[in-house]
Amino acid sequence: MVIATMQDLGARAKAASKVLALASTAAKDSALHAAADLLEAGVDRVLEANVADVVAAERAGSNATVVDRLRLDGRRVAAMAAGLRDVAALADPVGQTVDGWVRPNGLEIRQVRVPLGVVGIIYENRPNVTSDAAGLCLKSGNAAFLRGSSAALESNRSIAALLREGYEKSGLPSDALVLVEDTSHESVREFMRLRGVIDCLIPRGGPSLIAAILEHATVPYVIDGDGNCHVYVDAAADLDMAASIVVNAKTQRPSVCNAAESLVVHRAVAERFLPLVEPGLAGVELRGDDESIRILGPDRVSPVTDDDYGREFLDLIMSVRVVDDLDAAIDHVQRYSSGHTEAIVTTDIATARRFQHEVDSAAVVVNASTRFTDGGEFGFGAEIGISTQKLHARGPMALRELTTTKYLVTGSGHIRT
Amino acid sequence: MVIATMQDLGARAKAASKVLALASTAAKDSALHAAADLLEAGVDRVLEANVADVVAAERAGSNATVVDRLRLDGRRVAAMAAGLRDVAALADPVGQTVDGWVRPNGLEIRQVRVPLGVVGIIYENRPNVTSDAAGLCLKSGNAAFLRGSSAALESNRSIAALLREGYEKSGLPSDALVLVEDTSHESVREFMRLRGVIDCLIPRGGPSLIAAILEHATVPYVIDGDGNCHVYVDAAADLDMAASIVVNAKTQRPSVCNAAESLVVHRAVAERFLPLVEPGLAGVELRGDDESIRILGPDRVSPVTDDDYGREFLDLIMSVRVVDDLDAAIDHVQRYSSGHTEAIVTTDIATARRFQHEVDSAAVVVNASTRFTDGGEFGFGAEIGISTQKLHARGPMALRELTTTKYLVTGSGHIRT
Repeated sequence: MVIATMQDLGARAKAASKVLALASTAAKDSALHAAADLLEAGVDRVLEANVADVVAAERAGSNATVVDRLRLDGRRVAAMAAGLRDVAALADPVGQTVDGWVRPNGLEIRQVRVPLGVVGIIYENRPNVTSDAAGLCLKSGNAAFLRGSSAALESNRSIAALLREGYEKSGLPSDALVLVEDTSHESVREFMRLRGVIDCLIPRGGPSLIAAILEHATVPYVIDGDGNCHVYVDAAADLDMAASIVVNAKTQRPSVCNAAESLVVHRAVAERFLPLVEPGLAGVELRGDDESIRILGPDRVSPVTDDDYGREFLDLIMSVRVVDDLDAAIDHVQRYSSGHTEAIVTTDIATARRFQHEVDSAAVVVNASTRFTDGGEFGFGAEIGISTQKLHARGPMALRELTTTKYLVTGSGHIRT
Repeated sequence: MVIATMQDLGARAKAASKVLALASTAAKDSALHAAADLLEAGVDRVLEANVADVVAAERAGSNATVVDRLRLDGRRVAAMAAGLRDVAALADPVGQTVDGWVRPNGLEIRQVRVPLGVVGIIYENRPNVTSDAAGLCLKSGNAAFLRGSSAALESNRSIAALLREGYEKSGLPSDALVLVEDTSHESVREFMRLRGVIDCLIPRGGPSLIAAILEHATVPYVIDGDGNCHVYVDAAADLDMAASIVVNAKTQRPSVCNAAESLVVHRAVAERFLPLVEPGLAGVELRGDDESIRILGPDRVSPVTDDDYGREFLDLIMSVRVVDDLDAAIDHVQRYSSGHTEAIVTTDIATARRFQHEVDSAAVVVNASTRFTDGGEFGFGAEIGISTQKLHARGPMALRELTTTKYLVTGSGHIRT
């Protein structure tokens, strides 16, 4: 068996992207439905491949979380198929007119949405990403060039094969999804340097992957970054609302990037608020400043470090800081935030406005949980990641963020003088 | 004298950017006017500094083009001041609502424009870039962190000093413009790795600078790339219009990125069109395929190479290709284009639509010169570059492209369940 070179794979994705860019919405939707049908019909094949991955991971001594992320069952495969149908039902961003005007000389200018081309995605163990990412790419007219982990290779292969078959049955190129089967360390490096092939790389992984991208990538990329999210409870907060929001933001799903990691409380209400919220944070380890230790006691709160303030715990741990005023709260947030999501709880409109104006994060939330920064909750119908960078996309990314624009200029013989 | 470290300079720009992000439009406009007034009043100081740069460049044996780009006179300085006032008169992009909606659960979401933060610019000899770039950054609420060339250092210093004085007089931080005075080779490398300081780097330079950015930059960047622009003269073209457009696109200002480098002609009209356009291209060296040589003769057209088709000449040189049909024209353009601007001349609406739909460049023009892809001609009032990449910005970049967005989310105690 000859393994295709990375360049070959890239060339196939590129060629497919040119066909996809011109495909009608109807053709893309029909391909997504065909892929979903085949995924359902082929569930046994997918689960069989998945068992091989899971057994190998267990033999290799992988921890339970890793194995859980890897493991598929009938319900998870059905959810993948449903996801493809959901994406088919979303509005097609391609061809949307973003802006348009006529110049004084009569030249007409329109800015319209077009696909990016080839979207590269590096991801870890979850095999459902293969289907989810491929679906979003197809709907937005892009070829999906996927590089998953070696632990999920058999699962990814079986899913990709079914999706490719579905695309082909509908008359779209099977190379609308190209899976990199060489999962060596070198292949990641090669992947992120395919300039001229990959139009946008979305790395979904931990800090070491992001560091490698910053250092070695030559293709354009969007960083799906950490979420060191804060909730600030203001002096003018409805304290019951604040407690409900803090508990939800911290505990509803602590392992995700929009979970809160840090609680900041105005001194004027700390004495009342901390004992009020504490029972809801029963399973949560608190690491706080002197004032919070004084209020809740050293048995409940351990001393916080500067490193704690800057960390995304992704766990049932929360840092606590008591501040003198709004300025100190904003300073604290700005200093430690990773630029993902910060929330304020307050009844005071001027305070809310200042917080939203002065805090520089992808999402700045008033009187709601940080957990709402999410493609689904924003109404995008899906999500390919959450950008914490400022260029191209900031916040939840879905179909619109998988497009670029071009200018269509129309004249009647216009020349410059 | 102690030279500030790059980190110090970056920290100053960063601190200033936080003030600028919250500055009112009126404050920014008044600072731009104060800077323009001081630039006019200080013209002698600028010209004196410029003479030092020009003399040094001449002594070093720089060629006439380099010296010309470096040289300022009263008129050029006045144009810089006028440019600052023009930018003050443009609409402020900061605070614009880009999108907004209410979720079924009542959560309100607004996407608003905010400044990027610190915009880094690496540029070559033209000292006017110091003022032009600084003005656009200030108006869009960004700190300008500028790294010009060593040849222009004295000029850049004098311009930067006057602008900084103007900002300070108006109550904005002088560090809204920070000029890197260390113009060593190492300093460029250090500059492009100031992650966490520079929010967007715009390199304005040749292929070697771009290659260094791709290889070494860790900060986000937007590539202001080459323009290998094509004009395709269709079988259904008004040939007089086509000749006028080709001559304008090639000769009106051959040294700029939106000048045409390549002429593609439909076989059905080549025999009539090439002799028609030829006199207008009198000073232009033509490098063409066999058919164009047959039509215009080997004395007029030399044999073209594949390398010629792919090159941005930036000079009075043009490649010529005769194609069988629209498909071949699109194939040729897609193969050799740098993704900047391509134009078609045709009277046929279906042909024009197909060309605009299928050609994937920042601007696709019908019946007008490629020279219109320009911030000023697009009506942006200014230009900080022309992006040939697909992420963040594509095509002419001005104030809007110097911003990002954030989501403002407002609830009434919303939590996720």
